[in-house]
Amino acid sequence: MHYEEGAYRDLGWAKIDVGRPARTGTAEAVYAAGKTPAQVVGALAALREAHPGRVAVATRCDAACEAAVRDAFGDAVLVEAGVCAVGDFPAAESGALAVVCAGTSDLPVAREAEITARANGLDARLTADVGVAGLHRLLDKLPELREAACVIVVAGMDGALPSVVAGLVSAPVIAVPTSVGYGAAFGGLAPLLTMLNSCSPGVTVVNIDNGFGAAMAAARILGVKAER
Amino acid sequence: MHYEEGAYRDLGWAKIDVGRPARTGTAEAVYAAGKTPAQVVGALAALREAHPGRVAVATRCDAACEAAVRDAFGDAVLVEAGVCAVGDFPAAESGALAVVCAGTSDLPVAREAEITARANGLDARLTADVGVAGLHRLLDKLPELREAACVIVVAGMDGALPSVVAGLVSAPVIAVPTSVGYGAAFGGLAPLLTMLNSCSPGVTVVNIDNGFGAAMAAARILGVKAER
Amino acid sequence: MHYEEGAYRDLGWAKIDVGRPARTGTAEAVYAAGKTPAQVVGALAALREAHPGRVAVATRCDAACEAAVRDAFGDAVLVEAGVCAVGDFPAAESGALAVVCAGTSDLPVAREAEITARANGLDARLTADVGVAGLHRLLDKLPELREAACVIVVAGMDGALPSVVAGLVSAPVIAVPTSVGYGAAFGGLAPLLTMLNSCSPGVTVVNIDNGFGAAMAAARILGVKAER
Amino acid sequence: MHYEEGAYRDLGWAKIDVGRPARTGTAEAVYAAGKTPAQVVGALAALREAHPGRVAVATRCDAACEAAVRDAFGDAVLVEAGVCAVGDFPAAESGALAVVCAGTSDLPVAREAEITARANGLDARLTADVGVAGLHRLLDKLPELREAACVIVVAGMDGALPSVVAGLVSAPVIAVPTSVGYGAAFGGLAPLLTMLNSCSPGVTVVNIDNGFGAAMAAARILGVKAER
Amino acid sequence: MHYEEGAYRDLGWAKIDVGRPARTGTAEAVYAAGKTPAQVVGALAALREAHPGRVAVATRCDAACEAAVRDAFGDAVLVEAGVCAVGDFPAAESGALAVVCAGTSDLPVAREAEITARANGLDARLTADVGVAGLHRLLDKLPELREAACVIVVAGMDGALPSVVAGLVSAPVIAVPTSVGYGAAFGGLAPLLTMLNSCSPGVTVVNIDNGFGAAMAAARILGVKAER
Amino acid sequence: MHYEEGAYRDLGWAKIDVGRPARTGTAEAVYAAGKTPAQVVGALAALREAHPGRVAVATRCDAACEAAVRDAFGDAVLVEAGVCAVGDFPAAESGALAVVCAGTSDLPVAREAEITARANGLDARLTADVGVAGLHRLLDKLPELREAACVIVVAGMDGALPSVVAGLVSAPVIAVPTSVGYGAAFGGLAPLLTMLNSCSPGVTVVNIDNGFGAAMAAARILGVKAER
Amino acid sequence: MHYEEGAYRDLGWAKIDVGRPARTGTAEAVYAAGKTPAQVVGALAALREAHPGRVAVATRCDAACEAAVRDAFGDAVLVEAGVCAVGDFPAAESGALAVVCAGTSDLPVAREAEITARANGLDARLTADVGVAGLHRLLDKLPELREAACVIVVAGMDGALPSVVAGLVSAPVIAVPTSVGYGAAFGGLAPLLTMLNSCSPGVTVVNIDNGFGAAMAAARILGVKAER
Amino acid sequence: MHYEEGAYRDLGWAKIDVGRPARTGTAEAVYAAGKTPAQVVGALAALREAHPGRVAVATRCDAACEAAVRDAFGDAVLVEAGVCAVGDFPAAESGALAVVCAGTSDLPVAREAEITARANGLDARLTADVGVAGLHRLLDKLPELREAACVIVVAGMDGALPSVVAGLVSAPVIAVPTSVGYGAAFGGLAPLLTMLNSCSPGVTVVNIDNGFGAAMAAARILGVKAER
Repeated sequence: MHYEEGAYRDLGWAKIDVGRPARTGTAEAVYAAGKTPAQVVGALAALREAHPGRVAVATRCDAACEAAVRDAFGDAVLVEAGVCAVGDFPAAESGALAVVCAGTSDLPVAREAEITARANGLDARLTADVGVAGLHRLLDKLPELREAACVIVVAGMDGALPSVVAGLVSAPVIAVPTSVGYGAAFGGLAPLLTMLNSCSPGVTVVNIDNGFGAAMAAARILGVKAER
Repeated sequence: MHYEEGAYRDLGWAKIDVGRPARTGTAEAVYAAGKTPAQVVGALAALREAHPGRVAVATRCDAACEAAVRDAFGDAVLVEAGVCAVGDFPAAESGALAVVCAGTSDLPVAREAEITARANGLDARLTADVGVAGLHRLLDKLPELREAACVIVVAGMDGALPSVVAGLVSAPVIAVPTSVGYGAAFGGLAPLLTMLNSCSPGVTVVNIDNGFGAAMAAARILGVKAER
Repeated sequence: MHYEEGAYRDLGWAKIDVGRPARTGTAEAVYAAGKTPAQVVGALAALREAHPGRVAVATRCDAACEAAVRDAFGDAVLVEAGVCAVGDFPAAESGALAVVCAGTSDLPVAREAEITARANGLDARLTADVGVAGLHRLLDKLPELREAACVIVVAGMDGALPSVVAGLVSAPVIAVPTSVGYGAAFGGLAPLLTMLNSCSPGVTVVNIDNGFGAAMAAARILGVKAER
Repeated sequence: MHYEEGAYRDLGWAKIDVGRPARTGTAEAVYAAGKTPAQVVGALAALREAHPGRVAVATRCDAACEAAVRDAFGDAVLVEAGVCAVGDFPAAESGALAVVCAGTSDLPVAREAEITARANGLDARLTADVGVAGLHRLLDKLPELREAACVIVVAGMDGALPSVVAGLVSAPVIAVPTSVGYGAAFGGLAPLLTMLNSCSPGVTVVNIDNGFGAAMAAARILGVKAER
Repeated sequence: MHYEEGAYRDLGWAKIDVGRPARTGTAEAVYAAGKTPAQVVGALAALREAHPGRVAVATRCDAACEAAVRDAFGDAVLVEAGVCAVGDFPAAESGALAVVCAGTSDLPVAREAEITARANGLDARLTADVGVAGLHRLLDKLPELREAACVIVVAGMDGALPSVVAGLVSAPVIAVPTSVGYGAAFGGLAPLLTMLNSCSPGVTVVNIDNGFGAAMAAARILGVKAER
Repeated sequence: MHYEEGAYRDLGWAKIDVGRPARTGTAEAVYAAGKTPAQVVGALAALREAHPGRVAVATRCDAACEAAVRDAFGDAVLVEAGVCAVGDFPAAESGALAVVCAGTSDLPVAREAEITARANGLDARLTADVGVAGLHRLLDKLPELREAACVIVVAGMDGALPSVVAGLVSAPVIAVPTSVGYGAAFGGLAPLLTMLNSCSPGVTVVNIDNGFGAAMAAARILGVKAER
Repeated sequence: MHYEEGAYRDLGWAKIDVGRPARTGTAEAVYAAGKTPAQVVGALAALREAHPGRVAVATRCDAACEAAVRDAFGDAVLVEAGVCAVGDFPAAESGALAVVCAGTSDLPVAREAEITARANGLDARLTADVGVAGLHRLLDKLPELREAACVIVVAGMDGALPSVVAGLVSAPVIAVPTSVGYGAAFGGLAPLLTMLNSCSPGVTVVNIDNGFGAAMAAARILGVKAER
Repeated sequence: MHYEEGAYRDLGWAKIDVGRPARTGTAEAVYAAGKTPAQVVGALAALREAHPGRVAVATRCDAACEAAVRDAFGDAVLVEAGVCAVGDFPAAESGALAVVCAGTSDLPVAREAEITARANGLDARLTADVGVAGLHRLLDKLPELREAACVIVVAGMDGALPSVVAGLVSAPVIAVPTSVGYGAAFGGLAPLLTMLNSCSPGVTVVNIDNGFGAAMAAARILGVKAER
């Protein structure tokens, strides 16, 4: 019961969990929604200081937050799909992680997953627009999918893609529902339920639009090195 | 505005809509849930009397109701999957109606659709257990599906099958969600939402477990003769 | 199993399913929500190139997207109700498709259905504001409705109109719930449930506000020519 | 603030509100669900004692409860549709109250309304099975409906009937959703939402299957005499 | 079946139901949400022309719509709480209608009810901020409430006020839930369910924020003259 | 961080948390739902052994479970409202805890709260049937309520009682929704939402039908002695 | 029954409940949402006049409202987290109230609780960012938590923190769910349900984001002086 | 595209997907709910014939189904927690799979996971009753949890356990919500949402009560040998 001694940095409004890589294999990330730009910058700086060899990541950044991060960290920042990633991306050290999405409108969530994965040392590869309405597009990519050690499947609307993929590969399949779709998608509830009820055994699911969480689950599965 | 004169038979507790075939192409059916066995028998008798050339159909019959119908009409009754159908089934007079279901547990709903369709003169053909977890089973049946003039797709759990089928055929696709599945299927809500959000354009949906309704929609589409 | 060879065009961020007309009778359309204007224009251009004889359609366009499409394709574009349709509309080649809506507030959804249908060669005819609160307005149009080979019924609030229409005609009835209404309409949930529970047998339902989907279902039912 | 003195009878497990007729025009009724048969009998006895000139009513009685009430009060009890009514029914003293229901399966709820209304001195008249799938059945009864001073409309499934009725009459329309219907009726949620969203202005709604509540609202509207 | 001949005016995008007063006692009103300002003005003008002696009412007007109505009809328009009322208000010709609301935040909905009621000839009187957290405020107004022939009770949050009022008066009680409240009010769902489950018998309910509907129900109950 | 050493007893299928009184002031109780009778008896025995001076409590017991507990512990067991309480009840050592319920049908939940409270040394006093439909019954008991140091309010249906009580007393008010009510009570969802949205500040809420939890919260508030 | 005489001040659009401190221990606060800035200022002024020794509090103020309050009351106003508090804060007169929140994004709700508590004389102390993903941060603060007489726990996302805290302390635990989180948090529904289902007995819950309500519950529990 | 040739066995009412191990690493299992005992036995026999070296598994068996399986396969069947497993269990060939559950009532779901995992060659080890209300029970087992290559966490009620576990270990965490709990658990919805919203990154979730699915996901992660 001694693992927790000294293992966080207290900023008052935040307690940065610097012991997390040792416990869980990956560092804390900053969830920017509901935080001020100054809080996001402060948390990223604390993470950079605690783990100089790691990329510090913030997700769900709005424009004001992105600008503040760029101001603070300059050109070293990758900004896309609401993600701000500060630091040099490591070389991939895992088996292949396939990130596939059903439609072009699902791309931002898939990109959040891909960037987060690469920032954590995973060999992520994105394939877009292979929804089940035109099954041949997916079947055409099957050889690549079957080589992946883990597959993240991102889909809105009917959320049917993970069931089909999981029936074709033996790797772990992490399903990410998105909030893309007409009214009765109910902000992603429809594909969320679809994925939880997959008829293909062994599909697991993360929160709606949570590309970040899918990448972190992939990091656990692919077992990237804990400490840098 | 003269179509409605005399066009119903008043039993007090029910008003049999004997003008319905002339208006909508198919006769009234008896929804047995919430009715006493005597009421179901009475309504079937009234339908038989009004339309001697038609099969009188009751759906959602429980055991007591089935027994009462058998007592009343003898061997002329087909009883299965909660359906009681009284009268000689007509020869099929429509293009082929494919009824496919994703799993064996969806069979009762698919059978309700098939029996109702055949009682109304449709050439219904049932294919079972072609869910998307093993896609080759469906693809193997593709030639038959592509010959059908209309396709009813029955599925519980993720409800993904209609999206895949509708991407492969040009016929109308009527999707029927079933209440089959683990907890978060929520009694069929999950596949219902899946089907309403199908990424394959042109899928239409009926109520949960409503094989009867799907067959009636097929009858409208396939244009069976209104009056017998 | 050879139908899928070469049958898509890979734009990287999208895979245009150019084989879809051959499989399903209608071409892919662009769902603009969640896409950048450049992506919408790019997808429309790819569709125009693949199917020169067809109208390329994008739905759910916002103002920025509409402007980009107009810039790219000039005067050949029809823009209304969030739809951008590029190309010359074909002569109608189907039986009559009646599109009726319950209230004036439902008009944008009904127009999405009408435009999509006409772009796909259907003979769509729109009748507005025939809700059940003044039944005589609907009954007055009954002769036209009864001549239609297919009927799309658009309604928000109580969503009662499809049940009434389906009790009066024998053609297929496709119901479209809209998000029009006071609080407990819950963004279209109320009319969606109404329509799924229609007491008139044979009503089928599409997603909330999904005029596009209703038109595509009508195209399947009315059997427009697959290839142009 | 003196109206409440002595105005209840304390049974320990219940406090019979004997002042209610003076305040609200109608006496307390016993909601039997969740009560023991002995509690129901005890409460009915207390009501009979407090208001000898009134019918004492219990709703939602199961078989055990009905037997106990029959044992306690003998032949003076009317038992039907889960209602036990003890005492001689008064002569009707109100304008006509029309109770209409959409289908035969809705009859038990309509009967609960009718019996409760008559027990409170209303001139209730029941019309069954006039659902909108066969509109002429309703239109045929329109003269009677238009003579009613108040209309209770009971419907399950799509719950469309109150909207249609309210567009045809000027009397108050009280809508009662029932739990009758296939899966997506969700135990009456579907017709409940339909009725709350009625496009015919002035429809009011009570709880699912709550025929009792509808009758009590009618009693307020028709202004039956407070004290007997 | 002759009542409907000629009884609507066809504007193409709308069919003004000019026969409605004769059938239901009150004229059509314009639901402005989802309509263009020009459509609202056009519908109001048609109503004014059809019923010169009546106030033409539009509800759910936004600022642009209000400006357009003011431009079109000048100073004769009352604009408040999203309501535009065109024409001279009639002298009240009904028994007293009490409109009470639980909190100041519920005032806009209460005002929608009050204005609509007065435009239709009802003697509406508004009492604000008598929520149950300070019961004495309500009890202080009890004499006035007991004189009313009908009571509309408007409340958000817990929606408890109608139950308390209905236990104290014998007049009809129409409950209006509002969308006022913290998160788990879920846009008015909480008070809506409260009111539907009122332990005081005879409460009826209209849609969330639907002050208009409550007034129209009151008009039916108080039986204002049908034709002007 | 030494508090946890040795502080549980491992039964294999259960780990009895014998250190809980020292940490939280009250002992573990047995939630019987989903457990076998043997498991319930075994857990109660372990609790009795660990805390001889305390009453061991199991809630949500069915008949089989109650019989097994009676067999195992003999006459020392109090069995009511699904609660089995083994051991001598302590003398009350807290300020008065008022437990009030709105209707007789809410009594079982109120009794679960009362028994649990008394088993934990609270001076619980039950008042039944003081719902807001007859406000004078509650006002009559106000002096007693105002003397209580804590008030538990149990109500189903509209769940309005806690708001009224909390506007009249200064003690903490713990609200318990029950699953009592007609259809749109949705198993207690309606009163749960009502209570969460109380317009009387300072009401807190526990789970539906959770009389046990309310009593445990009262134990925390009234600060009964931690160790016996 | 004399407590209500003269006990409110009637502003027409509001009835200030000036008798509330005498009844419930704390004064009315102003819920600013849905009120105009002028109404908020007017209500605060009335509260200041009625209770000169108390801080007048308005919650849920937007920028326009905050500006109006500052204009009206000058520098004496504390404005933060949507709260406007007018008057000198009293010295703390209660036992310690710990306010803890799981993440930095939950801070605004925690601050609403802290400010409201201090305005009512409670000794509130805020601890931020001790979520269960890094348990050692919470365990490090355990000595302070165990000294508190009452604990408010604020958490979004999974809402797991109150269960963990309540297993470690014996004081009352008031749980506040926040609307912080990805899609399936559904605006705070997820942590709300978590907290209602806490496996640690004795947790009570208030509405989503309702820091105000939690503080008012704490005031009841900690028994602050009723009158100033 | 040749993998599907001959890869299923057609029983008419079922198409056994005998090619599944080659594609996905594990064999088809039989979902017994909604199937007749004869269908379950028939499907198990077909699986045994196709894969003699594998254990054939059926889940969600009721008593009648269990009896039929025992009759058909004799003593070789393991029957527990609704699972029927036919065949000799293989020696474990994977890293350790920890299955932990929060309470004793969650045991049946945890056992479904454990048995399914062992039937598929995983080294599953069950730890019961380590819920967060007594955190030391979990911390005591931390060394074992940290040695596991994968962790399945089963919890009902608040579903908080997976968040705590995932903050302490680096292995993949698969969360299984159960339907255990009081009313507002809503059949497992509460812990399902909790788990989807876990504040500990990298938790993935399966359906309510779906121990089977969790085990299958673990099999994908731990990479058991595809063919036997």
